[in-house]
Amino acid sequence: MAARTVKLAVIPGDGIGPEVVAEGLKVLDAAASEHDISFQTTEYELGARRWHATGETLPDSVEQELRGHDAILLGAVGDPGVPSGVLERGLLLRLRFAFSHYVNLRPVRLYPGVGTPLAGVRPEDMDILVVREGTEGPYAGMGGVLRKGTPGEIATQDSVNTRLGVERVVRYAFAKAAQRPRKQLTLVHKDNVLTFAGELWQRVVREVGAEFPEVSVDYSHVDAAAMFFVSQPQRFDVVVTDNLFGDIITDLGAAVAGGIGLAASGNINPENDFPSMFEPVHGSAPDIAGQGKADPTATLLSTAIMLDHLGLDAAASRVERAVSADLRARAEFGAGERTTSAIGDEIAKRVAGQG
Amino acid sequence: MAARTVKLAVIPGDGIGPEVVAEGLKVLDAAASEHDISFQTTEYELGARRWHATGETLPDSVEQELRGHDAILLGAVGDPGVPSGVLERGLLLRLRFAFSHYVNLRPVRLYPGVGTPLAGVRPEDMDILVVREGTEGPYAGMGGVLRKGTPGEIATQDSVNTRLGVERVVRYAFAKAAQRPRKQLTLVHKDNVLTFAGELWQRVVREVGAEFPEVSVDYSHVDAAAMFFVSQPQRFDVVVTDNLFGDIITDLGAAVAGGIGLAASGNINPENDFPSMFEPVHGSAPDIAGQGKADPTATLLSTAIMLDHLGLDAAASRVERAVSADLRARAEFGAGERTTSAIGDEIAKRVAGQG
Ligand SMILES: CC(C)[C@H](C(=O)O)[C@@H](O)C(=O)O
Ligand SMILES: CC(C)[C@H](C(=O)O)[C@@H](O)C(=O)O
Repeated sequence: MAARTVKLAVIPGDGIGPEVVAEGLKVLDAAASEHDISFQTTEYELGARRWHATGETLPDSVEQELRGHDAILLGAVGDPGVPSGVLERGLLLRLRFAFSHYVNLRPVRLYPGVGTPLAGVRPEDMDILVVREGTEGPYAGMGGVLRKGTPGEIATQDSVNTRLGVERVVRYAFAKAAQRPRKQLTLVHKDNVLTFAGELWQRVVREVGAEFPEVSVDYSHVDAAAMFFVSQPQRFDVVVTDNLFGDIITDLGAAVAGGIGLAASGNINPENDFPSMFEPVHGSAPDIAGQGKADPTATLLSTAIMLDHLGLDAAASRVERAVSADLRARAEFGAGERTTSAIGDEIAKRVAGQG
Repeated sequence: MAARTVKLAVIPGDGIGPEVVAEGLKVLDAAASEHDISFQTTEYELGARRWHATGETLPDSVEQELRGHDAILLGAVGDPGVPSGVLERGLLLRLRFAFSHYVNLRPVRLYPGVGTPLAGVRPEDMDILVVREGTEGPYAGMGGVLRKGTPGEIATQDSVNTRLGVERVVRYAFAKAAQRPRKQLTLVHKDNVLTFAGELWQRVVREVGAEFPEVSVDYSHVDAAAMFFVSQPQRFDVVVTDNLFGDIITDLGAAVAGGIGLAASGNINPENDFPSMFEPVHGSAPDIAGQGKADPTATLLSTAIMLDHLGLDAAASRVERAVSADLRARAEFGAGERTTSAIGDEIAKRVAGQG
């Protein structure tokens, strides 16, 4: 029997989701056999197909079953036939909220060999860890509509920021910053306009910062941060920000760090009161689904974040090294026209072959 | 006497504000004498200096006086000694709101000869007109704080979207799109998460769009739009979006279109019920103030938007052509180390010298 058994819930989802998840599992298995881990996986059919068939996004019973796992690996959900918001609010955000994934961890790293649209930016200029709040802010779903369909209509959308919610993610971000060589934390917000929320974020950063005197603290308005992601990415080490700002700057980060095909994420409950969920940042890309064209790299990097979260550090860095070597090889030898599974195969081989 | 007299209120502000505004007035004067216009200017001291001296941001009496003008030219306000939000909410946003500047017009154009951090992007790939809503959304200032300073603290920040407010800016954006060769309008929002506000924006775009059958309509989530500004700026022609998303993507736009030193804006009340206000997107840059180092180009382009708004099309395009020629000359002959006023002088000369 393996030294460590991980109960993994798998939600392949729609479009390219199942294709990239298959490679994720392949690479996880390769890492598992090197590190005496065993993955016990259960697949859940959730997403657009289920919604079309049954009208369900996340039955309570499935949520209950997911709770019993150590982690969740998700591919991507959605197709053009599902109204906007149904799966986002009914499945993705419901899981992030129900399982208290208050840390949405999104590295913005330019791996050696990977092309960036930014002229003159080198890998050492871009190694940002964005710690995005995941359970409140404008994502809370609060607000409403009054006098709908009349000239006097009003629609509101409320950002909810609690001391509890802000403090826990800020503390996590400080702890991460303290572990990194640069030890720098940048709060990204818009405190000159969103004064109520901004003041709370600033105050919490100040107060929690007192526990981390070794971390230097910086602040950037979100509009300036968007600019700096393009013009001076080396300004940033760890970034902590709210749910919506984090959504925007990490997609921007993906664009400058080699594209959405490489962007990984973890929806993390640091206390392990609930299973954390790992997913590529990209969507279901129905236009290329089923053709073996999807790049599974973002999913593979997400499994590395997962292994790290599970305390399986050696396996995590093994996967990351293999991905990194593959990315470098693409640049040296050309990417060729490898299929999704060919990329997965080669990275799995690298995982197995490493010392 | 000139054929047209424009009563112009001038708010030089702080830092580099007075320096760039001086060049704006110089170039306006050059254009005026070519087009039989006369500018009757009144200067108002508003901004950080006034606040430090008197605690005032915008006295009611000054607001009343500003109302009597045809337009306002603003440099930049703020210095590190003013708490975040004081001048933003008390002066800038107060003017935008009081004078119903519901159109915040921000071109994202890559002028020939101007460098962009994006490899391989050409001027013809980047000619975006962002029509940002300017009087509501998350900028409304609504929300509050409960149980401040306790573990149970909650800070909210509410985005307010009215049918009135959304419809008028959307109609303006459609009209702009209809005048451009591509005739394409992209709504940028996050309707899969901000479902109340997003549904209103989508519905209004659909309904108003029926009046503009020649305009093709597109939609992009704000996170994807941020990505596309970097990876595929040619996707966009006219963009309409809310106040906060517009703030973020136009700063990003400035970064990819040659830097914040070139980014112009108009805070426009299309009906001319109130004076519109024109300002460079950059701030007061206290670090380089008083040294003649600021690039006045963003202010000059803002005066071109102003002239256009005032119906002085020929003068507007004269200024824009002069700026554009100067930008091309910089690339061909090198920028040299021209001071703020040298740049203004040369552009004023080009304005005067054109056929
Ligand atoms: C699909 C959507 C709800 C989601 C988000 O906005 O968080 C996505 O954009 C992401 O970043 O994971
Ligand atoms: C200074 C600030 C209030 C302002 C804004 O957020 O609108 C600025 O960033 C801008 O874009 O004009």
